[in-house]
Parts: sequence; structure tokens; C-alpha cells
Amino acid sequence: MEPFEIQILGCGSAKPSTRHNTSSQLVSLRSKLFMIDCGEGTQLQMARYHASYARLNHIFISHLHGDHCFGLIGLISTLGMLGCGHAHSLHIHALPELEMLLRPQIDFFCHEMPYEVVFHPFRADEAAVIYDDRSVTVQTVPLNHRIACCGFVFREKLGQRHIRRDMIDAYEIPISQMGLIKNGADFVTPDGDVIPNERLTTPPTLPRSYAYLCDTAPMTSVVPYIEGVDVLYHDATFASTESGRAQSTFHSTAAQAAEIAAAAGVGKLILGHFSSRYDDECPLLEEALAVFPHTVLAHEGMKIEVEGSS
Amino acid sequence: MEPFEIQILGCGSAKPSTRHNTSSQLVSLRSKLFMIDCGEGTQLQMARYHASYARLNHIFISHLHGDHCFGLIGLISTLGMLGCGHAHSLHIHALPELEMLLRPQIDFFCHEMPYEVVFHPFRADEAAVIYDDRSVTVQTVPLNHRIACCGFVFREKLGQRHIRRDMIDAYEIPISQMGLIKNGADFVTPDGDVIPNERLTTPPTLPRSYAYLCDTAPMTSVVPYIEGVDVLYHDATFASTESGRAQSTFHSTAAQAAEIAAAAGVGKLILGHFSSRYDDECPLLEEALAVFPHTVLAHEGMKIEVEGSS
Repeated sequence: MEPFEIQILGCGSAKPSTRHNTSSQLVSLRSKLFMIDCGEGTQLQMARYHASYARLNHIFISHLHGDHCFGLIGLISTLGMLGCGHAHSLHIHALPELEMLLRPQIDFFCHEMPYEVVFHPFRADEAAVIYDDRSVTVQTVPLNHRIACCGFVFREKLGQRHIRRDMIDAYEIPISQMGLIKNGADFVTPDGDVIPNERLTTPPTLPRSYAYLCDTAPMTSVVPYIEGVDVLYHDATFASTESGRAQSTFHSTAAQAAEIAAAAGVGKLILGHFSSRYDDECPLLEEALAVFPHTVLAHEGMKIEVEGSS
Repeated sequence: MEPFEIQILGCGSAKPSTRHNTSSQLVSLRSKLFMIDCGEGTQLQMARYHASYARLNHIFISHLHGDHCFGLIGLISTLGMLGCGHAHSLHIHALPELEMLLRPQIDFFCHEMPYEVVFHPFRADEAAVIYDDRSVTVQTVPLNHRIACCGFVFREKLGQRHIRRDMIDAYEIPISQMGLIKNGADFVTPDGDVIPNERLTTPPTLPRSYAYLCDTAPMTSVVPYIEGVDVLYHDATFASTESGRAQSTFHSTAAQAAEIAAAAGVGKLILGHFSSRYDDECPLLEEALAVFPHTVLAHEGMKIEVEGSS
């Protein structure tokens, strides 16, 4: 199975802390590398975990608070300085104000860029597919934060059927036919016999999916958009003891994150965006586990394989 | 003696590295805290070394390359978020373009700031005193980099004379007279005897000084501005084996930094702004020591007491 992996680069909240970096993560899917959010210091986190600058072509920014985007200019500048095979371009998907804020800095600091930075604005008030290639779609999910904010759902597309090796051998199927058969075609033998596709192949792997919902107060309206996703990363800034603070800042408690995960029947929940007040997030994990058992705490450098449900 | 201390927050160059942060340092003088340069991640370095956000009121930016200023917006945002007693204001001394680039971001990201950010532009083509208070002056020194760039010289002002404790006791000098005597006044005893100031006091501590010259190709024209400073931090991006690269990028080798230190007769040289190509800067130290013996390598967290020449 082709890789579909999340790597956490930062899972802290806004206040600087030596325990956590500000928000950023990488989504590696088949041969593509995507980034979600880019807090200050993200480029250094990529260096620390030996992530590939060259493979990164699309960055999705959830909202325009500094701890989710202040690392962009440094990353763009470094990608420009290193060259990094970005002869094509770097695409940034964000609310429209970001281009207005960043373009003057890109023009000033990165005037010898070997690649183009292309902004793709999206609306925060509607769910929409904002990225679509042969492998994956990315859909926005409106969230409920102090300012306009969207989550992102990565959905792998249905792949090709898998050809059975024993059938290749039995019918001496030529390589030239493989692509057609993976796409569902029957095979006609040199003698004119038609071998139905179902006999030659097994069904494609079920598409996998990943949802990133941060920053947000808990909202049940997201459930239809993330129903059954394999992995969910959800805002869990506070423990329930700070639920008043969570409410006033439009964040979630760990228990509330778990309730969303349970309501949507996701495969696994990752808690993140931790307040710097916690020296230890175990109480957050405990309260979430009481609601939803398949929960883990994010930490910098952590890799999570997105596994299909079957 | 009142403290005059430098703390290195970052002494690497532009390319991200897990060995060094990008340029920033703190200058602590008497009760004031100044910052020179503010590369990405500087606010986190302050947190790491428990530096006081509240005491920071003046930031000096040498030039507008990202590795010297990309950390400003995050730091300003955090100072705003934390409050930090900045009811007064935060002053940024930099080339004029910086305000144009940063002001829109400050207005957008930090709209609930409890303090004002005041930009003080300086010219890169002249040496001028750009900061002056009762304790210290800061003077710019034009440097020779790829873009407009200035170094900074911090010069402590001459302090008060020191009253001899034995004389206080011998003449029963009242507290009310101390300030006058420290400023040079004689003391008149109740019997009308005049005790000359020189008998009551010892001379003030010699003013101390610190120069930061980075980024720059070596240039002897700086020597008159830094003659005899107690501590010099100088661009030492490369070893002499990379002198061609140093020349083409308008940086210095460690040996060239040492030659400037020797020509200016400084007390101590700190080498910094290391290229990420070095896993170990000992060869840089060795080549500098061969030219100027009082040399050390900068490293993150390092504190250097600026000691007067007595």
C-alpha cells in the first residue's frame, strides 16, 4: 500500500514554549508532500526531522493567527535560497488576506526566487473541495474560532484494482494489458476466450482519509464532513477544568474533541494545539480516552500512518 | 559594577540548521535590555534562556535579510499577547523599509496591542548616534554587505565617582550629600572644613563598550569606530578555505574578523554568523587565534560579561 502518513512538526498553541512548537504538520500521500499550517520555526522543524523541502508544493493555512502562519516567509525564503527543484511553483491555500500580507515581503526578501509562489484563496463560510489531483482531494470545513477558520479533510481517491499474480502467470497476461485490467477491463486470450476482470483482480484498497480541525470550539456541524475518517486531528487546547477558558477563546477541551471523534466514528483521534500551561498533557489524554478509546497525544516529530478501515 | 552583558540567542547564518539559530542577541546594560537582530525563532530562544520580555524596549536591526528580522512579527505579537508591561512602547531601530514591510502585519495580526510599536529609521551610509539615554549611546557603523547594512556600537556613559566608605565613616557624611559628592562636589564639615572631592572618592569606572559588526565583508574603515572596544562580535561566516565564497557573499572569514579585532585593539573578539556547512567551528577559532589571541566562538545561550579595560 502506498504511504499516507502525517508528521507533527508543532502541536503547541500561541504562547512560546520549549515543550512544543507552534502549529504545523506534514501530510505525505503517495509521492506528494503537503503542509498544513506553518507557525514560526516550521522550516527548522523540517530540517530537524529531515523532511524533504523539494517535495513540498502545497501548503494549507487554516486561519490567520500568527501561530499558524508566521513561519511561511522564512520557509518560502529558504526554499528560494536552496533552489529545491521548485522550478514549478509553491501553492499556498489560505484566506484571501494572506496574499495581501505576504506578497510585499516575498517581493522584498525573495526577489531572486527560482520559483513562483501562487496563492489560492478559499472562503471560510463554505465547505468546498479546494484541491484535487489524481490521488487526493482536499476539502475545507468551516470551523468556529475567534476569526475565520477552516479545517481540511484529505480524502484519497479510489485506486486501481490489484491484479492477482497467479492469474498473470496462468493466462500469461502481457505487460501492455496490465493498466487496462487494473482499470477494470476483461482480458481476451490469444484463443479469443474472455476472462472477466473479477477473476483477474481484487478490489482496490479502500480510500483513506484524514481530517485536521484546528483551531475551533467543538461543533457538531463538522460531523457530516468527517464521518468515518481514518484519522482526526482536533483542537484540544485545554483540559475540561479550563472549559470556561476554552469557550471564551473558541478552543476545545480534550473531552470535547473526543466527543466529536465519537460522534463522527473516526478511526483514531490525535489531540493537539496544547496550551503552554500544561507541563504534561496526560490529564488531557485521560479525559479523552474516557469518551473515545482510540486517542493519542500529538508530539513533535510523531508520525501517524493513516490506515484504512479494513 | 553594574551589569553589562551580552547573551547570544542565535549565531548561525541563513540556512536552517539544528546547530544554530539565526541571528539575535541581547545586550543587558544596567537596568536596560536591548536586542540586536531578530531572526526567526528568537522569541522561543528568549523563553528557552528565561530572558525578560518585559524589560525589552529597544530592538536594533542591522539589515533586511530574513535571518536577521523574520522573528520580529512573532516577538511583537507575543509581547502584545502577554501584555508584558509594555504600556509604554517598543522601539525598533532599522532601515526605513522595515516599517513598510512590518506595519501591515502588525496592524492585521496584533490589533489588540496594549503598547505601541515605534519605528526609528536610520541611514546605512553614515555613522550616527541613533540612541542615547543616561547610561548608553548606540552608534551605527556602515558595513559592506550585499545590501545596506549597519553595525552597532554600544558605549556606556561615564558613571559617577565612587565614594570611599572609610571617608563616609571618618567624616560622618550624611546620606543627603552622597549624590552631590558622587558627582564631584567637595564636602563641608559642620565645622566649616572643606574636604576636597578627590580625598572622598575614587574615579568612576571606565565606560565599557561593545560592537556588533554583522553581516559584512572585512573593512578597515570600521576600525576608527570600534577602536579599543571591550568586546567585538564580528561576522565569521567562513573559514579561510572558503575565502572566495566569503568575498562573493560579502561575508568575512574568521581570520579576517581577527585581523579587524587586532587592528582595532579590542579587548575580546566573539566569532559568529557561522555557515551551516560547519559541524564544528574549531577550525574557525584556530585560524582566528593565530591572528588575535582573545577570541571565542559564539554559541546559543552564551553570556559574555563586558569587562572594562580598567
